[in-house]
Amino acid sequence: MADFSEQTPPFKSVRIVGSGLIGTSIGLALVSRGVEVEMVDVDPRAQGLARDLVKSRVLTDPELTVLALPTSALSGALEEQFSINPGSKFIDIGSVKTKPLLDVSKSKVLRSNFLATHPMAGREVGGAESARADLFQSRTWVYIPSDLAGTPVDPDLLKSGIWMIKALGGVPVAMQADEHDRAVALVSHLPQALASLLAGQLISGDPTSLALAGAGLRDTTRIAASNPALWDEILTSNSQELLPLLINLQSDLSALISAFKSGESVAKFIEDGNQGRALIPGKHGGVAREYTYLPVVIEDKPGQLAALVSECAAVNVNIEDLSIEHSPGQFTGLITLALSENDAQILSTHLIGSGWNVHAPR
Amino acid sequence: MADFSEQTPPFKSVRIVGSGLIGTSIGLALVSRGVEVEMVDVDPRAQGLARDLVKSRVLTDPELTVLALPTSALSGALEEQFSINPGSKFIDIGSVKTKPLLDVSKSKVLRSNFLATHPMAGREVGGAESARADLFQSRTWVYIPSDLAGTPVDPDLLKSGIWMIKALGGVPVAMQADEHDRAVALVSHLPQALASLLAGQLISGDPTSLALAGAGLRDTTRIAASNPALWDEILTSNSQELLPLLINLQSDLSALISAFKSGESVAKFIEDGNQGRALIPGKHGGVAREYTYLPVVIEDKPGQLAALVSECAAVNVNIEDLSIEHSPGQFTGLITLALSENDAQILSTHLIGSGWNVHAPR
Repeated sequence: MADFSEQTPPFKSVRIVGSGLIGTSIGLALVSRGVEVEMVDVDPRAQGLARDLVKSRVLTDPELTVLALPTSALSGALEEQFSINPGSKFIDIGSVKTKPLLDVSKSKVLRSNFLATHPMAGREVGGAESARADLFQSRTWVYIPSDLAGTPVDPDLLKSGIWMIKALGGVPVAMQADEHDRAVALVSHLPQALASLLAGQLISGDPTSLALAGAGLRDTTRIAASNPALWDEILTSNSQELLPLLINLQSDLSALISAFKSGESVAKFIEDGNQGRALIPGKHGGVAREYTYLPVVIEDKPGQLAALVSECAAVNVNIEDLSIEHSPGQFTGLITLALSENDAQILSTHLIGSGWNVHAPR
Repeated sequence: MADFSEQTPPFKSVRIVGSGLIGTSIGLALVSRGVEVEMVDVDPRAQGLARDLVKSRVLTDPELTVLALPTSALSGALEEQFSINPGSKFIDIGSVKTKPLLDVSKSKVLRSNFLATHPMAGREVGGAESARADLFQSRTWVYIPSDLAGTPVDPDLLKSGIWMIKALGGVPVAMQADEHDRAVALVSHLPQALASLLAGQLISGDPTSLALAGAGLRDTTRIAASNPALWDEILTSNSQELLPLLINLQSDLSALISAFKSGESVAKFIEDGNQGRALIPGKHGGVAREYTYLPVVIEDKPGQLAALVSECAAVNVNIEDLSIEHSPGQFTGLITLALSENDAQILSTHLIGSGWNVHAPR
């Protein structure tokens, strides 16, 4: 991938319409590959932050327009961009693929000048402030090589799209629109619906119960923090594929409830879960950044973080990420530093020598 | 905590009956605190591995016996240990608490010599080989200070139990047995049941679909890899508390399906999920605090983090948490500081005055 990214981009300028998580992350990555990027958003605050982060320029008639928008906003943005820059080619990155292709078939945009794609990457936090250039590293990025009638996408646009996917570290996978929508219903929309339903049960839980929450609850509900308007749109626009899956799950849930009521074993349900879990491939997930995590127990008082960061700077160790765990009334806190393996070694030795309470890295 | 662990243990010798993940992790931690430990298991392989890992010794009449067993095996093990070492006091660590206390009330063991506890820690992988001495670090560890009739646990045993919890890095929390069982039904058993059901749906998915799996599916199904026999027992032994929660979820799932069928918005379900998710306390228990997040765009080069942390120290602003977003090849990075609202105001003004690229807080 490193070799690849050194290739000359097949396009020089891109306007990215939509300065949320995905749009801004694409912008960051493209700029680092030498492409000129203009960030645009209807929200001036988002646009301002994205422009600063991406070092965005004002462009006239960019060769390519990336539409990084909710599906409902796609059609309008496409018409608008086409009217001011009719020579542009278009790439969308929305979560469902049948609907945008329908939108395009009704627009003035030449269907072969529109490439529908979907990067299988995201975060439960949104906005330009959560963007990162390596968001797509090693992630599957689906593209639809022909329109709904089977007409192939313009070869130059296809080449640009695949270049962009690879340059951003993604793994391009060609699929048909309906095949894509069926797949994401299972691996993305069903988990989202269930995580939301599960987290919704907590509203009536008492605080004493919730105080016992552990990693299991946290992981199963992480994506329940997702944006309601965005996910309402994604789920309802793909309800045709999602509904049969929900109905199947409903039937399994009823069977589980019956088993509990009649005092039967529920081991079969856990076994099925084991089997299903084992089918999830391991290679496409966020494996790009392998950090070593170094836990440092600190006195929970001001100045400790600054002192620790200074120690890192003193031995030229680069902190990739950092988390602070502490709570009122506790005398110690835990800072976990995400580092390269080599830096973790160096820092661990240095900190122990300076009297810090360092634990074994993981 | 560092001070605490240097205190002399109130007991010198412990037999741990059960050499699985939890028992062996307790053994590792206690030995590191200078306690003599004997690991025992009905499975000779597990016992052998645990004895090697823990550097277990053969003990005669240890002061304390920790029962780290599935709930169904507790009663038998308790009778056996009592018959060979009637002077011992007992601590159990099982996932439900009403049943063990019922077992004890029917046994010859003095009820005040039995302390029921439950560390809110575990891994989806089991066995002595997955054990780690820091498994309980910062985890809530529930203990039941009286039996089902309200008779208090022997003060020396209570002291030993609380010492053990703290020495292992856990946070002791007193609860009644029924209160505990209701709480774990919500925060542990319901997520387990749902994760298993969700993962079970993948069995009928085609490999092309599964190839698109991302972090969302991986996180929501992580605990679906859990041991079927163990979880069958945990869930069925707490079905009285779990059933109403499952029935409630079933009703919400039906409502969601109806909304999809009639083409209504499902935003409400996602919003409820947001609300429920926000109720999960931070890692130490205690309600999640509302922070103000201040984004600061930095040049991605060494020394920037240290400089920023020093600015915070200079105006006495306490950093509650901090995240760093950057990646190789990116020219800018983003540090987001989690602060109190007041501190965010102070710091924002100060940083802007010093020429930092600060964006609007959220």
